[in-house]
Amino acid sequence: MEAAGAEKPIYRASTTAPVNIAVIKYWGKRDPKLNLPTNSSLSVSLDQADLRTHTTASCSSSYSSPDTLTLNSKPESLEGARPQACLSSLRALRSELEEKDPSLPKLSTLPLRIVSSNNFPTAAGLASSAAGFAALIRAIADLYELPQDPTTLSLIARQGSGSACRSLLGGYVAWDHGTEADGSDSKARLVAPKSHWPSMRALILVASHEKKDVSSTAGMQTTVQTSQLFKTRAEVVVPAAMEAMEKAIAEKDFESFAKVTMRDSDSFHATCLDTTPPIFYMNDTSRAAIRAVENLNKRAGKIIAAYTFDAGPNAVIYYLHENREAVVGPFKRALGEKEGWLGQQGAAIGYAEIAQEDEIVMAKLKSGVSRVILTGVGEGPVSVQEHLVDEQGNPAD
Amino acid sequence: MEAAGAEKPIYRASTTAPVNIAVIKYWGKRDPKLNLPTNSSLSVSLDQADLRTHTTASCSSSYSSPDTLTLNSKPESLEGARPQACLSSLRALRSELEEKDPSLPKLSTLPLRIVSSNNFPTAAGLASSAAGFAALIRAIADLYELPQDPTTLSLIARQGSGSACRSLLGGYVAWDHGTEADGSDSKARLVAPKSHWPSMRALILVASHEKKDVSSTAGMQTTVQTSQLFKTRAEVVVPAAMEAMEKAIAEKDFESFAKVTMRDSDSFHATCLDTTPPIFYMNDTSRAAIRAVENLNKRAGKIIAAYTFDAGPNAVIYYLHENREAVVGPFKRALGEKEGWLGQQGAAIGYAEIAQEDEIVMAKLKSGVSRVILTGVGEGPVSVQEHLVDEQGNPAD
Repeated sequence: MEAAGAEKPIYRASTTAPVNIAVIKYWGKRDPKLNLPTNSSLSVSLDQADLRTHTTASCSSSYSSPDTLTLNSKPESLEGARPQACLSSLRALRSELEEKDPSLPKLSTLPLRIVSSNNFPTAAGLASSAAGFAALIRAIADLYELPQDPTTLSLIARQGSGSACRSLLGGYVAWDHGTEADGSDSKARLVAPKSHWPSMRALILVASHEKKDVSSTAGMQTTVQTSQLFKTRAEVVVPAAMEAMEKAIAEKDFESFAKVTMRDSDSFHATCLDTTPPIFYMNDTSRAAIRAVENLNKRAGKIIAAYTFDAGPNAVIYYLHENREAVVGPFKRALGEKEGWLGQQGAAIGYAEIAQEDEIVMAKLKSGVSRVILTGVGEGPVSVQEHLVDEQGNPAD
Repeated sequence: MEAAGAEKPIYRASTTAPVNIAVIKYWGKRDPKLNLPTNSSLSVSLDQADLRTHTTASCSSSYSSPDTLTLNSKPESLEGARPQACLSSLRALRSELEEKDPSLPKLSTLPLRIVSSNNFPTAAGLASSAAGFAALIRAIADLYELPQDPTTLSLIARQGSGSACRSLLGGYVAWDHGTEADGSDSKARLVAPKSHWPSMRALILVASHEKKDVSSTAGMQTTVQTSQLFKTRAEVVVPAAMEAMEKAIAEKDFESFAKVTMRDSDSFHATCLDTTPPIFYMNDTSRAAIRAVENLNKRAGKIIAAYTFDAGPNAVIYYLHENREAVVGPFKRALGEKEGWLGQQGAAIGYAEIAQEDEIVMAKLKSGVSRVILTGVGEGPVSVQEHLVDEQGNPAD
């Protein structure tokens, strides 16, 4: 936290937080109010050079109430129950500090002005709310100089957006579903830091939004209420997958990591389809991406790539740096004209030939993918000195 | 059976048999050799005026061995284990008759010449093998003048193609999975004849094959072996659905019929997606058909249409005759230029307006559907005098 200005100081703290893409998916709440999940989940936090939310939290007696949030230069509401739960939890922790040490400024009583921006297009349908809530919680915690560790803060982030709790940590992160009714044990846990297995990469195929698509409106609670297969997923399939995935990460066993990842994505989307009315997130482009991954694994004679899909058509393809040419090369050949290849990782990869068995799937991808993102496993939130609120308390451009 | 020619008579019998479209799907074998299913299934036999296989079975000492099958003017092999199992079972039953009554001609010893034709395009991806095997079994049983009832013959048809056993009966037909190891109780059962609920109709949207699609090669046994959700479907979901469906048919309760139908289709495709590698039969066109059905049910304020998908992208939409305008009208407006509207049912239906919420889905259907078929619940196999083998034993043109 730093303070600028004299009479009515502007207190500021800034952070960046990563997007995370789950390899074992969160879907279904056992307690919607507290955002307690039906099953545990596990994700990879992605490199913030490619995908991150940058947030400045500031407060000042010169600000007028209520608290405000500006995201990508547009005002966003903080009035919902979820952001309010986060803000009041953080204020309560600050208030405790202020009571213990009366010399501290009474930041908990001041209006907040929060400014946030993403370094990736919001319309890309990436899990921006996770990075957004994680950055929000981290920035305010820094502003308030809270001593709590990321796992404790994840309890607060979870109430904002379930998967946000995983973005408070870098590397490989679990979110344990917990068993307590108050949610006190439903929080993020570091499975392994980035340094344990730094060669994990992700190629994201962002599906085109030009073609109008049939929308899916129903959400995860409809699945909990109507899918007859969901209970088996939550109670049997995911617990086994979590165990297998943690072992795979501990042993840096990519084949097992990939098998569990693909299987869990399929299982998650199967329960969506088993919902009444059925929920479809994958489209024909997604299906082509799955076949492309299957084909390249067949050619390699071993599993060197793993697809996974969140609640949308974008494919996220995990692979190891050592296999970048075999995995990414064919996609670069087919999708080389799309945005996203100019970064360091994309530029370094050659154009592979399109195998005959890939011709149809690559043509489908060419017509259905709008851009690619090349990234990899990354660190957790980072404090930064670049503030999005200036010394006078105005949003910086 | 009739005999033509003098010295070496040509024995002939002809039948037609219906296509059936399941509302509770068969997927997964507990015994692949005997074609014993993991779960029971239930289907509607469709009107043979619209969809049928016409088969003539003939035999003669003037024919040379081996048995032959001509389907739609092309020779087809009878050498596989499945057709061989059917032929030898039928010959054994004929042989029993011949032993009991030595005056009977020894047809069981004569080569068979079987000629078959469908009144619908094979490429439409309809369940033609069910109608085909049912007609084959029925025609040979008639040729051999076998006294067995259709349910007993269904034991033989099942060994040719599982779902064929249901096409030996008309109306609403169950195939009970049975529990005997030899499959003796895994056979078709009449749930209700067509006359019980004659107003059931089906609109089939045949998906275009012009657009090359990503193929699915894996079959049902891969699901049995790899899907972690399949067991729940087979053991819990389907038994409850069978009970609910039989009740809905008994009570002519379309809403319940529709709910169970759609839910079972979704559940079946969910277990396909949960297979490793995932099996996709539905595509973006199928998804649009689902949304169109959901939208028209919403507009009606009650469920008047039910979608179901077999192992392919074609939508089969069940509805009652009284709701034909509300169900079929919007599709006729969107797809009126496609083949299939010229029959009596199609011509009688008006063009409804396309509702605003249907614009995207109908545009998707327009680009993805090649033809429509309007049909309804129909009768079981029918003996016919039109023979596809002439009195000299030659395939008739």
